[in-house]
Amino acid sequence: MRGRSNATMAQLRRPTYRIQMKTLDLMLRHHPRGDHQHTADYLEALNALEACAAACTSCADACLGEPENLDQLRRCITTDLDCADVCSVTARLLMRQTDAPNDLIHAQLHACVLACQLCAEECEQHAGMHDHCRICAETCHHCQERCNFLLGEISASGVADPESDTAVG
Amino acid sequence: MRGRSNATMAQLRRPTYRIQMKTLDLMLRHHPRGDHQHTADYLEALNALEACAAACTSCADACLGEPENLDQLRRCITTDLDCADVCSVTARLLMRQTDAPNDLIHAQLHACVLACQLCAEECEQHAGMHDHCRICAETCHHCQERCNFLLGEISASGVADPESDTAVG
Amino acid sequence: MRGRSNATMAQLRRPTYRIQMKTLDLMLRHHPRGDHQHTADYLEALNALEACAAACTSCADACLGEPENLDQLRRCITTDLDCADVCSVTARLLMRQTDAPNDLIHAQLHACVLACQLCAEECEQHAGMHDHCRICAETCHHCQERCNFLLGEISASGVADPESDTAVG
Amino acid sequence: MRGRSNATMAQLRRPTYRIQMKTLDLMLRHHPRGDHQHTADYLEALNALEACAAACTSCADACLGEPENLDQLRRCITTDLDCADVCSVTARLLMRQTDAPNDLIHAQLHACVLACQLCAEECEQHAGMHDHCRICAETCHHCQERCNFLLGEISASGVADPESDTAVG
Repeated sequence: MRGRSNATMAQLRRPTYRIQMKTLDLMLRHHPRGDHQHTADYLEALNALEACAAACTSCADACLGEPENLDQLRRCITTDLDCADVCSVTARLLMRQTDAPNDLIHAQLHACVLACQLCAEECEQHAGMHDHCRICAETCHHCQERCNFLLGEISASGVADPESDTAVG
Repeated sequence: MRGRSNATMAQLRRPTYRIQMKTLDLMLRHHPRGDHQHTADYLEALNALEACAAACTSCADACLGEPENLDQLRRCITTDLDCADVCSVTARLLMRQTDAPNDLIHAQLHACVLACQLCAEECEQHAGMHDHCRICAETCHHCQERCNFLLGEISASGVADPESDTAVG
Repeated sequence: MRGRSNATMAQLRRPTYRIQMKTLDLMLRHHPRGDHQHTADYLEALNALEACAAACTSCADACLGEPENLDQLRRCITTDLDCADVCSVTARLLMRQTDAPNDLIHAQLHACVLACQLCAEECEQHAGMHDHCRICAETCHHCQERCNFLLGEISASGVADPESDTAVG
Repeated sequence: MRGRSNATMAQLRRPTYRIQMKTLDLMLRHHPRGDHQHTADYLEALNALEACAAACTSCADACLGEPENLDQLRRCITTDLDCADVCSVTARLLMRQTDAPNDLIHAQLHACVLACQLCAEECEQHAGMHDHCRICAETCHHCQERCNFLLGEISASGVADPESDTAVG
């Protein structure tokens, strides 16, 4: 017995969410050289990327913990691992807004959209059997949308090539 | 002009937060071999770790974007980079709950508590000058607390050594 | 005095290189579902990616340790950090050869070629002043070449579209 | 046919190894604030860490590609994934030598020694069946030794506490 009541734990728990949401928001808004025109879009994408990286890492591990039919989850695990890695690095690039390299961000977002799409499609096939695959598929799908949306927004307002729209289907 | 009203953007924006919060929660609760006794504590720590990794990555970049006195932010940038890396990998280990290796999780949480403490102390010194350092210091401090709390909880309930408490000051 | 002679240290040191080279080579050759047609190309790219990720991490840190003119190294540090992250994740994807997703690997290699190119160009501008920038520029350049070469090889032999060549200039 | 002779490919291949070895060495030796007293030890550990991270990533993937008895490789895959992540982040911390935080480096090396030990022990159990597990076990074992050795060296010469020796069994 460590002397912590449930009430205390609930109190400790609640602020976390608020801090986390505010943290990303505040950091981007206080960035001395942030892309303040698109802060809301970056924030959307970043939240989706972090949720997706977490869901994929957890889904791969949950698959490995399934007592039966692990054979059928091989591809799900590998796409989870790829997607987690790609989302994590894409988030890091989006957070770096000092001298942000537009071409690289486009290319990395494009790779990320593909990773999310592949992982969503694979996880969907196991969604009926495993809740973790169902939730992961939804999270990947949402992340794919947010990254694709951001890709469109920053392409549409790009100085170098304002007419192009490289958003991926 | 890309024909998206603010209303649409607000609609797109709101679900993200809800999905992100629910995602981690749902993934842990649906994990076939999760440590369900401590789900709330893991969730707290994971949310704090992800916020801290993001804040540190963003703070390092914001420091590099400051127009003046970059010289004084060298150590802040390096502690930010270390803390971001350590928090990210600690989160990954905590998410893997299949055959979770207790000793390794303890050691990694211990390293993470130190990384957060060092980064909080360094960022606090620049909190009066830079809002990103102030927010980052608070986020590191919160993460240090949540990791330390989890360290205490899983030590207190450990099968191998139920009496030990390796929580770090 | 810890009682280790220089001779012992030299003995300890030498095998590392041999083990490291052999490790990647052996792992790929013993992979049950590896792309054995292109093992040499993957190995080249993987070695270059790991060297590049290490050089960029070290160059960013060395820049932060320079006693003078840190102002002029801002962009070098941010491109170093981006390039290190992108190379690390690209290497992870290339190492995963079970059900390797061709489209994703192409897109990630493409992003990596851009990251290396940007970082090589930026580091070259400081090569006359700082040896770490000079070495990092060479390493990035080499990595760009190896990733671009692999991109060409796997495109040329791709089942889905054998005639296409998406190698980047 | 892409018009590249085997001779050209061999020429392209050979320099990689040389560059990679020289890269880490040169970067540490040209670091303006590197721990030049221990460069050889850092170099040993860094080479071992990168080989180990690569071997573990590849071994996890090779396990997932094994046609039979995947069930028995669950724990091998999860320890591989943990070890790859911990080795990668430990290498990043060791490469950052500007204002290197001694306590954090000790704690992270300690966690890494545990990760390598766990993974070596698990992979050894499958070494008779799978070459990738055998090679991975050797690589983890070597990395554990090099990190433990570095831990002893930097503890022995630490300014703050020159008598302590925190090297792990």
